[in-house]
Amino acid sequence: MAHLSIIGSGSMGQAIAAVATKGGSTVDLLGRSDSGRPVTGDIVVLAVPYPAVADVLAERADQLAGKVVVDITNPLDFETFDSLVVPSDSSAAAEIASALPQSRVLKAFNTTFAATLASGSVGEHPTTVLIAGDDAAAKSLLADVITAGGLRAVDAGSLKRARELEAVGFLQLTLAANEKVSWAGGFSLAQ
Amino acid sequence: MAHLSIIGSGSMGQAIAAVATKGGSTVDLLGRSDSGRPVTGDIVVLAVPYPAVADVLAERADQLAGKVVVDITNPLDFETFDSLVVPSDSSAAAEIASALPQSRVLKAFNTTFAATLASGSVGEHPTTVLIAGDDAAAKSLLADVITAGGLRAVDAGSLKRARELEAVGFLQLTLAANEKVSWAGGFSLAQ
Repeated sequence: MAHLSIIGSGSMGQAIAAVATKGGSTVDLLGRSDSGRPVTGDIVVLAVPYPAVADVLAERADQLAGKVVVDITNPLDFETFDSLVVPSDSSAAAEIASALPQSRVLKAFNTTFAATLASGSVGEHPTTVLIAGDDAAAKSLLADVITAGGLRAVDAGSLKRARELEAVGFLQLTLAANEKVSWAGGFSLAQ
Repeated sequence: MAHLSIIGSGSMGQAIAAVATKGGSTVDLLGRSDSGRPVTGDIVVLAVPYPAVADVLAERADQLAGKVVVDITNPLDFETFDSLVVPSDSSAAAEIASALPQSRVLKAFNTTFAATLASGSVGEHPTTVLIAGDDAAAKSLLADVITAGGLRAVDAGSLKRARELEAVGFLQLTLAANEKVSWAGGFSLAQ
């Protein structure tokens, strides 16, 4: 399979690492103290909170050239839980793609809580990772990693659809914060 | 239960009428030729495509004063399937609420395909109607109609969340149009 660098060793970074490893990919999981270590993966997952992305890009933009870069963020205003902090007609993924013109940027994993990546299910349905991006080969590469790891992957369209994926992630976070769903539940997709 | 007027007798209007009737509510279903008939429901569902809403409001704004008005639209650009036709920081529901200051406007049913209202399920999960609005009593009234009809209803927050509900509806329509999900599937919610 593929070789991934995952920047961020929180619950999402660990859960994505577990999925990739289960599917036979190799993973280099980089934490906060690893800023001196270069990324080696063909796929680089930015598994840090949105406010930390700018620092990662400042440090590693050159290293990310030529890579498939996966943005998993939900750019909420976590003080109010009432809006996103990116422009309403854009997305965190679009901003990252703009900052990394030499990378192939994908949006993925922002609509799947960590617990559902670990369990492989959302309620009675298999966990589905929605992937948006403008590079079909990059999407296919990531989808193969995900499906090899036992989850479903669905192509959600061009990177422009990251706006909608971030709206889904935002809504889902507000539903969980208001105890309408659990942190092991949320949206699933039925074919 | 309640008395509903449903403006629009297409597949969504019929499906919502069936849910409400099953739950013991009474329904007056108004089609295109019924523009002369006044609305009599405490809840009025605007079950017309988004481009037709303006005409309904022009004809019936006075009749809608004091009513709970339910917007079910997905305001897509159906020529491109690549954007919404409402401002990115707003929603169809917000526009309708602005046009109807004497009404209590809710967003609902825009994330549930007609087939899932009829079947009561999305895959292995019960069909869940997400409701956004600023009036708790209005949301509760509609939720009671829905749950009495055998579906689940979840309070998705204030009317501001209609932006996110419309993003979910938009994404779901693109997934169905691209055959990633069927018109009897789509997003469901696991608690």
